[in-house]
Amino acid sequence: MPRTTRRKPVSESAGTWWKLVVAYDGTAYGGWQRQPNAITIQEVLERVLARVTGQQVTVHGSGRTDAGVHARGQVASCECATRLRPMELQRALNANLPADVRVLRVTRARPGFHARFDAVAKEYRYQLDLGPVADPFLRRYAWHHPQRLNLRAMRRAARWLRGRHDFTALSATGDGEEKNCVRRIMRLTIRQEGQLVTIGVRADGFLYKMVRTLVGALVKVGEGKLTPEELRELVRQRRRVPLLETAPAHGLFLWRVWYR
Amino acid sequence: MPRTTRRKPVSESAGTWWKLVVAYDGTAYGGWQRQPNAITIQEVLERVLARVTGQQVTVHGSGRTDAGVHARGQVASCECATRLRPMELQRALNANLPADVRVLRVTRARPGFHARFDAVAKEYRYQLDLGPVADPFLRRYAWHHPQRLNLRAMRRAARWLRGRHDFTALSATGDGEEKNCVRRIMRLTIRQEGQLVTIGVRADGFLYKMVRTLVGALVKVGEGKLTPEELRELVRQRRRVPLLETAPAHGLFLWRVWYR
Repeated sequence: MPRTTRRKPVSESAGTWWKLVVAYDGTAYGGWQRQPNAITIQEVLERVLARVTGQQVTVHGSGRTDAGVHARGQVASCECATRLRPMELQRALNANLPADVRVLRVTRARPGFHARFDAVAKEYRYQLDLGPVADPFLRRYAWHHPQRLNLRAMRRAARWLRGRHDFTALSATGDGEEKNCVRRIMRLTIRQEGQLVTIGVRADGFLYKMVRTLVGALVKVGEGKLTPEELRELVRQRRRVPLLETAPAHGLFLWRVWYR
Repeated sequence: MPRTTRRKPVSESAGTWWKLVVAYDGTAYGGWQRQPNAITIQEVLERVLARVTGQQVTVHGSGRTDAGVHARGQVASCECATRLRPMELQRALNANLPADVRVLRVTRARPGFHARFDAVAKEYRYQLDLGPVADPFLRRYAWHHPQRLNLRAMRRAARWLRGRHDFTALSATGDGEEKNCVRRIMRLTIRQEGQLVTIGVRADGFLYKMVRTLVGALVKVGEGKLTPEELRELVRQRRRVPLLETAPAHGLFLWRVWYR
């Protein structure tokens, strides 16, 4: 995404650059990024890449999903000299990865390809289970919210949120303050299918915990505790809003990442 | 189902009869029926009913799902004197049950109601994941079968299997030999949606492991290892066929049970 610091120039002693599309059930993991006290997706991928290629490999993700967040189409990049063809590398990785992490596609990338810096858009989806009783098969994949929601009001709020805005109000203080909080939401949809409501958000970039804060705010609108106009005003004021709750991690999926 | 032994007459000191519709993720359980070396759904329900009502209650299921099999609409019956109204009983049960077992509905039943003996039809669904790479979100809920299947041939076999047949060939030796293996399949459908194939079977009764053997046989037809005509011949011969493999438990869901 254009706002982030650019990478350093490509080294000369390069191997091959790889693009991996990865799906994972985030339930058992401490998120994407390597850290001392939890097993993470990045760590698991790097460990298996080391086993398969015999090299120490650093894997970059398109974004750092939080603990418990899932992915259907996370993209990871790495540089790694191996004679394996893409299909063989994919098979070898899946044969060594745990069943809750799957590599869906492996392709060679242009030298210097970086899953995070080269991404031009990403889509997240958030699942809400509105049933009076929680569906046991969704308990790890949807936020159970047994009260009725006014989807019309939520859609009205969503209509305004589309487009370019300064989303400071929907950001959380993360690792390092973001200076520029302007992002463009290209798509924001709310779909219902039985007791399952899916909120899809596609944007050219996301602030820390932005999707979960956005979902928390939309749910407040659906509950009638915040009007679409009030939410619009909050966003316009460009201040972090302590009253906006973050929706729980386990309903969130990193769905797809786009590159040029 | 009409073939099973009838229950004993209703006792006079009766409380209220209850009908519970129950959904469960069977992954962590040793099946429905109480047994010494595993936690079972029946046991969990009876334990929670005892806690909520202060009584020792025996719960009967419409059928004994095997270890690892799931349910969307299992029906359980019990006799239990409590002053709780159906809605209150449901809430109390769900408040005490683990998240992978949910009571979807509680209603009062006529005296003597028995979830198994009074059932007139049941539907099971079996999920196959045909993707080249297993979907990590289906790993507990579908049989991963990465080879292509000839669904047309499977549907041709399914057409013949509908109706009344002696299904000895598709039964497994279970607890006690079944004398009468004639069952009527009212509905047998094979649907594809992306990489997920769902086989739905509705019948007036099922033999031990009949659905999983049926799915195993249909998959053999889909692989081209057995023609629809050969499968028909096998069923006509009314002998147990050792070559028919049983599909794994984790793809199977008890979907719905019908009563008069």
